[in-house]
Amino acid sequence: MNEFDLVKNFFEPMCLKNTDVLQGIGDDGAVIKWLGTSSLVMATDTLVAGVHFPHDMAPEAIGYRSGAVNISDIAAMGGLPKYATLALTIPRVDEKWLSQFSNGLRQVFSEFGCSLVGGDTTKGPLTVNLTLIGAMEGPCLRRSGCEQGDVVLVSGTLGDARGALDLLGSNKLSEGGKYLLKRFQKPEARVALGISLVGYANACIDISDGLLADLKHLSDASEKAIIVDIDKLPISDALLEVVGRERAVEYATTGGDDYELAFTVSPSNVDYVMRVAAQHEQRISVIGEVQKGSGVRFKKGQERGELLEASGYRHF
Amino acid sequence: MNEFDLVKNFFEPMCLKNTDVLQGIGDDGAVIKWLGTSSLVMATDTLVAGVHFPHDMAPEAIGYRSGAVNISDIAAMGGLPKYATLALTIPRVDEKWLSQFSNGLRQVFSEFGCSLVGGDTTKGPLTVNLTLIGAMEGPCLRRSGCEQGDVVLVSGTLGDARGALDLLGSNKLSEGGKYLLKRFQKPEARVALGISLVGYANACIDISDGLLADLKHLSDASEKAIIVDIDKLPISDALLEVVGRERAVEYATTGGDDYELAFTVSPSNVDYVMRVAAQHEQRISVIGEVQKGSGVRFKKGQERGELLEASGYRHF
Repeated sequence: MNEFDLVKNFFEPMCLKNTDVLQGIGDDGAVIKWLGTSSLVMATDTLVAGVHFPHDMAPEAIGYRSGAVNISDIAAMGGLPKYATLALTIPRVDEKWLSQFSNGLRQVFSEFGCSLVGGDTTKGPLTVNLTLIGAMEGPCLRRSGCEQGDVVLVSGTLGDARGALDLLGSNKLSEGGKYLLKRFQKPEARVALGISLVGYANACIDISDGLLADLKHLSDASEKAIIVDIDKLPISDALLEVVGRERAVEYATTGGDDYELAFTVSPSNVDYVMRVAAQHEQRISVIGEVQKGSGVRFKKGQERGELLEASGYRHF
Repeated sequence: MNEFDLVKNFFEPMCLKNTDVLQGIGDDGAVIKWLGTSSLVMATDTLVAGVHFPHDMAPEAIGYRSGAVNISDIAAMGGLPKYATLALTIPRVDEKWLSQFSNGLRQVFSEFGCSLVGGDTTKGPLTVNLTLIGAMEGPCLRRSGCEQGDVVLVSGTLGDARGALDLLGSNKLSEGGKYLLKRFQKPEARVALGISLVGYANACIDISDGLLADLKHLSDASEKAIIVDIDKLPISDALLEVVGRERAVEYATTGGDDYELAFTVSPSNVDYVMRVAAQHEQRISVIGEVQKGSGVRFKKGQERGELLEASGYRHF
């Protein structure tokens, strides 16, 4: 039983049939109609030490990253992050650790104008959980909206965070290595881009499990096929320098933790989206298209079955 | 450094100075002005296996209790629980455990009309975190509102959950013992009472750390003294039968996990509150009064210093 069956069997029945739940379980966040045309987006994410980050990761980076990962979920729905609660489980009160951790979290929250409004601190194995509420106007960005003929785009560059994992523990890093490490420790949530996609993108997800795995979520939810042009994947010079092209392509397709947005728009909206992205100085790249059918495949002549095999991040 | 210093030093600075945060960190829940006169209440609570419940506790009871504990926080603010996210960390996918756990959680959510709208399932040591959003109209019930001369009341009976801890692992339970166990496994969140107190109670808290410890939170937040009449504590016949009067009084004052509401009202509102409670068939008892000064004390002639000593539940 994978995470998706688990959610379907055990948790979905707990969502009562309220007409005010515009989007329930099964997307990056839930969307609730509050009053008038205003909705709130709610998302939660847990990072467990030893599973989602190394035990000895710099506390400031743990704090920043926890915040960014959750903000990214709100961004993927097209919302503006506003309020958060922190459920922090720590083995003991280590003031130095807490001070650095909260510095990191405070930094990312203040960058995005998000307020910590409550929380719970408990004793136990190190686990960081945040729940965020965002505000939004208009229809949210769902996983399930891909239309046949849509163009598939991604923000930023892919695979950098996965590249950084190879470097953890290294003492001496090149400039490229430092760049990758920053991409892992301080992912940039694409809030402005997400908001500007509302009403223009047909579907959207943030890349946490890896490009192919997350496109599979779009494909499954939308019941469409997604064709990826492997030659068009945006890869940073730093990643190329540090791991070479072969591995860079592997990391860009199957590495997780990028927190870029992958989204699909009808061909008539591509120009608008490109213009808006340029205004935000946000790199975006066309990487494929939506077709009739199911699953995620590479463009003809780009058969790389081993990447598709490797792309299914298993939570258990 | 205790939990309160920790929150004050590290987490409060992360609450930006928004005028829409009506109540930030430091109460049972946060209250956010959304639109018009409507507010939302947000609260989060984590239960760690081996800390907040025994590893071998029945999964259904873990599910029910996790929901009830969080709903109780919303009740203590005067809100109506509406939506929840579940962040569940489990060591492995055990379908039987998950099925029973989700049955328990579903039961309490459907009793209170609360929808699970999202969540995150991660691999790691068993930890259950819920974040709830409630809706409310009017001023929330804060810890900080005690007024000199207020009457102090509590709902239900006290100490039952603590009494149940003595019985865990017993094979044969008396009727009284079964009642206590049910009080521990399925605490009743006082949502209807909380909502009816809005505009009438000056301060409110739910009893999770123990009566005296939680009254101390009211006393500290309100900068008033709270005088408890130890002879008036509501104690169930079951608790008296199972542990005797001496220990029953100890458990009623210092045992946690009751999830009853403790609240203060001006003398002129006591009749109203009693009437409303009777309509809800909700037992409430006058147990003390608010005076000038600070701290929690017993009524003259009831000196029981050892109980006050024992009342400070330490989270670390």
